[in-house]
Amino acid sequence: MGILETIKDPLDLKNLAAGDLPELAMEIRDLLVSAVARTGGHLGPNLGVVELTIALHRVFDSPRDRLLFDTGHQTYVHKMLTGRAGDFGTLRQEGGLSGYPSQAESEHDVIENSHASTALSYADGLAKAFALRGETDRTAVAVIGDGALTGGMAWEALNNIAARKDLPLIVVVNDNGRSYSPTIGGLASHLSTLRMTQRYEQALELVKNNLGRVPVVGAPLYETLHGVKKGLKDIFTPQVMFEDLGLKYVGPIDGHDEPAVEAALRRARAYRGPVIVHVLTHKGHGYAHAENHDEDCFHSPQPFDVETGEERARPHSWTNVFSEEMVKIGAQREDVVAITAAMLHPVGLAAFADAYPQRIYDVGIAEQHALTSAAGLALGGLHPVVAIYATFLNRAFDQLLMDVALHRLPVTVVLDRAGVTGDDGPSHNGMWDLSMLQVIPGLSIAVPRDAVRLRELLAESVAVEGGPSVVRFPKGALPREIEAVGHLGGMDVLRAGDPDVLLVAVGPMADICMDAATLLDAQGISATVVDPRWAKPLDEALVLAAAAHKLVVVVEDGGRSGGVGDAVARMLRDADVDVPVRTYGIPQRFLDHAKRQKILAEIGLTGQDLAREITEAVAKRSPVLERHPARQPQ
Amino acid sequence: MGILETIKDPLDLKNLAAGDLPELAMEIRDLLVSAVARTGGHLGPNLGVVELTIALHRVFDSPRDRLLFDTGHQTYVHKMLTGRAGDFGTLRQEGGLSGYPSQAESEHDVIENSHASTALSYADGLAKAFALRGETDRTAVAVIGDGALTGGMAWEALNNIAARKDLPLIVVVNDNGRSYSPTIGGLASHLSTLRMTQRYEQALELVKNNLGRVPVVGAPLYETLHGVKKGLKDIFTPQVMFEDLGLKYVGPIDGHDEPAVEAALRRARAYRGPVIVHVLTHKGHGYAHAENHDEDCFHSPQPFDVETGEERARPHSWTNVFSEEMVKIGAQREDVVAITAAMLHPVGLAAFADAYPQRIYDVGIAEQHALTSAAGLALGGLHPVVAIYATFLNRAFDQLLMDVALHRLPVTVVLDRAGVTGDDGPSHNGMWDLSMLQVIPGLSIAVPRDAVRLRELLAESVAVEGGPSVVRFPKGALPREIEAVGHLGGMDVLRAGDPDVLLVAVGPMADICMDAATLLDAQGISATVVDPRWAKPLDEALVLAAAAHKLVVVVEDGGRSGGVGDAVARMLRDADVDVPVRTYGIPQRFLDHAKRQKILAEIGLTGQDLAREITEAVAKRSPVLERHPARQPQ
Repeated sequence: MGILETIKDPLDLKNLAAGDLPELAMEIRDLLVSAVARTGGHLGPNLGVVELTIALHRVFDSPRDRLLFDTGHQTYVHKMLTGRAGDFGTLRQEGGLSGYPSQAESEHDVIENSHASTALSYADGLAKAFALRGETDRTAVAVIGDGALTGGMAWEALNNIAARKDLPLIVVVNDNGRSYSPTIGGLASHLSTLRMTQRYEQALELVKNNLGRVPVVGAPLYETLHGVKKGLKDIFTPQVMFEDLGLKYVGPIDGHDEPAVEAALRRARAYRGPVIVHVLTHKGHGYAHAENHDEDCFHSPQPFDVETGEERARPHSWTNVFSEEMVKIGAQREDVVAITAAMLHPVGLAAFADAYPQRIYDVGIAEQHALTSAAGLALGGLHPVVAIYATFLNRAFDQLLMDVALHRLPVTVVLDRAGVTGDDGPSHNGMWDLSMLQVIPGLSIAVPRDAVRLRELLAESVAVEGGPSVVRFPKGALPREIEAVGHLGGMDVLRAGDPDVLLVAVGPMADICMDAATLLDAQGISATVVDPRWAKPLDEALVLAAAAHKLVVVVEDGGRSGGVGDAVARMLRDADVDVPVRTYGIPQRFLDHAKRQKILAEIGLTGQDLAREITEAVAKRSPVLERHPARQPQ
Repeated sequence: MGILETIKDPLDLKNLAAGDLPELAMEIRDLLVSAVARTGGHLGPNLGVVELTIALHRVFDSPRDRLLFDTGHQTYVHKMLTGRAGDFGTLRQEGGLSGYPSQAESEHDVIENSHASTALSYADGLAKAFALRGETDRTAVAVIGDGALTGGMAWEALNNIAARKDLPLIVVVNDNGRSYSPTIGGLASHLSTLRMTQRYEQALELVKNNLGRVPVVGAPLYETLHGVKKGLKDIFTPQVMFEDLGLKYVGPIDGHDEPAVEAALRRARAYRGPVIVHVLTHKGHGYAHAENHDEDCFHSPQPFDVETGEERARPHSWTNVFSEEMVKIGAQREDVVAITAAMLHPVGLAAFADAYPQRIYDVGIAEQHALTSAAGLALGGLHPVVAIYATFLNRAFDQLLMDVALHRLPVTVVLDRAGVTGDDGPSHNGMWDLSMLQVIPGLSIAVPRDAVRLRELLAESVAVEGGPSVVRFPKGALPREIEAVGHLGGMDVLRAGDPDVLLVAVGPMADICMDAATLLDAQGISATVVDPRWAKPLDEALVLAAAAHKLVVVVEDGGRSGGVGDAVARMLRDADVDVPVRTYGIPQRFLDHAKRQKILAEIGLTGQDLAREITEAVAKRSPVLERHPARQPQ
């Protein structure tokens, strides 16, 4: 029987002899590799925090102390140490273990949001609450990667944390030199300087012994001497950036030396004020295929072969098409530049970066800066393409609205993972963009239904002048291609029908709308299917088309509130066209993790569901039935 | 004839003898005070940057060089020096000078967005564009206050700027120790340390001369010596935070010593890399009533008397009612705490802060942190009230959605300046909140129509458990109070009518809806007026009420896209109630500055406009007319 099986609770871990910990760490790594090999998931980040997580749970008393894991994809080890090691066969499966912390799973889990850089703010609030309620024995502990420190929220939080010297709050910087990709910017080089100073204590002693011999004359004498002491400390422990903010700094610590991490955390805990503990780890530590993986240390592999490290092939995806097309556009347009927020490969910009290394900017996990820096590039005469996951654009709503759109700047935002993404849970689903973006004046939104349309609409989007444009597409494999049989204004007619039902299929929903139309036909209901191509502005031809039908149905893979359905209904109201409208999309709630297809089925976004709903709606509309009695549903 | 009148262009300023500059500065200050005394506007910030702005325009070549003013309320002097001194009689009047930079006004203006902390990102993008296009003589210059540096975007930008040592980019930190209120946090104390080190050069020389005598033995010898040099520099010029990021630092400079500022800027310009120029200024400098104004150095006064400094009395406002009520709630509920993002007085939390000094948190210009720190406070068992201007909540959409709502945390957000604000132009209007907030699962939105309802709904909101709540109200004077004549579910019926028109008046739109109903009555059209009180979730009683009328009209003072009108229409569609709906609100475009009432009239949000629109809509609906022929419009 292994040691891990005996750990049902952090208390069991505390009672373990220190000598057993290396064996435990090995068991944890074995389980991480074997579990993720089967299900896919975040491997590299978890392999890197095995010793750190063991130390955290030995030093602190969760849930009385609160352990806040920023981003949350590095909590597999935490889950194993809080009674969930036996559940790893169900990782990321519907009804099984979430890939992120989950309050429903455990009282030891806190932050369910997988967007980066939030943990320090949570910790700040918790520490203030503990103080106000007199719970002076409790400690808030935030674990944050060096990459997440490039996000502005983390800075806002550090600035506040530093202002309250009385609050016990520990920030563990898990520094592996990477976000998804290597961390960028001034902070990264600062941290890298810190990394190289592990021998500082030894050197410090050396110089301190010589300090008395420094002859300093003249005023300000006291300040000078005091300053020299502080200065010498800074030379060898250049923790100055954090200390200048007023934060105590402990480190750097070898994050794979469990006793050292434990000792540092105990010191930090005893301090009862805000402390930074700087821990150096290696992403993928202990599994050679991850350690040697150039691109991202097996950040989040597909299922893979444990022996060879070979991943299951990924299907040809929307991202691949975008990637290819960007290289072509780059060749045609010298003014096109590209921006990624620390996700060069996942968003498909690696090929563009290889082809045009001067025209790619990785800004770190910094979506706000990505958009406003793009505004600056556009002001300077370039056309930036910002490629980002749909859900992360929420971080930069204000910047797209005010810094880009208000200034009528030609910036193209490409949203990957729009709509239902599935496996990664509620905060990864890209179900907010179509609603949020509809409100932005002067913004154009293209929603391609397949690879052919993605190529077309991307080209059209980077040609938009006088305002921003968006192209959005789902995660994963490409759907079948559906050719237009005609056009209505700028819209593609995918299927011509009689004046019963107008089905407005927003982009990738064309697939199920065509299925629904076929099923409806069998019911004697004729459906015209159009793909508007642009979700904003909507084509004026929609008004005439709607007026010529008895029922208008809009189907989108975005949240129903304020999305394309609402926009179509408003357009018709404004034109005094009072034909009944029905709108289908993602219900406005947080979706639990499951496979994308399973979720779409659960929320009724299938051809069969749509056909049934439309049949019922038609049945309720007597005028339709009166005029087409032969087509009455059976 | 004054000197200012001779300045039609920055070139005129460059040609001015240095000896004339003090006189010019005096003339500018006189004009600032006399103009703002008449119109109201931002006074303190502009009085503080007179010498700095003169120096900027003498050193740089705008518009070839780009001067980017963060937040933009400190650009009055810039406007005067770029040919607009003669227009200050029209400041903030419709069709007159904007209170912010405006590209339509001048080629010297760039950033029109008044939200803080954006300028460094713009500068980063511009500098990259200059480099890529080979425009090596151009320089991007960002002027940012110390307060705006507490915003996360600024950190994201600094991190990126530091990574490009080759880009000429100058960040002028206009350090007056304040946002609206004194700047908070670790950064503020760091800057304050920097402020106290003006004698550093002298001291540095002193110690440098003694450096040769320091006996250092043993390895690492070279690093030690090199480090000592750097360390000594740090002791006396503790610019380390910026330098650790890799940014050259110049300062601190007395911002009211024009030749000194000019000299520093010329050094920075010659450097052709990223430089921080740290300039110390005094908000309100040169006008005693501003300098001695405790609350905010006359940050943005009403029209005032130049001699006495006495402001025109502000009307009893929504903010006042909120302020009073928060003190009462604080007495009843020990768990209620309050958060402001650097705007304690403007959002009405000063009285709460006085009464409960342990329960107020000023987080700086850091809306993201405000919301997620509130999430932490709520996790810790408290009920935070975050008070903020409606337009600034756009900065924290993701945090409210993911950090608060996904975690079902009881946080109340109070949005002041919702709807049309007017004078301050497009980026101050609070016209986005009702759309953006509708998408957030589990969020409740209260929209009080008057002072009585604000008191009621604020109390109800802080009683909401299991999820966040929002209370939103407009800028300025309170409207008349309108009592309910009955109730439909949880909705207030303000006027009972026959089954012609159901007027859904969202909060403060009750006023004009009642006017419209009276006018309609005279046309023989009977209108029921209801105020739903909660814009989300909508009361189920709306469905039955709508089904009992021939036309449903929704009126709101938010953007029409995805707002309450769309939500009502969707609710009725989902219930298969296909009664015609018409929705009125703010058109989805950026509104130019003008008086609030004037803008409301322009966009058709008056009782008369509504009555006319509804009359026309009724006339088009023959079923209504058939059933009520006696009521046919004349």
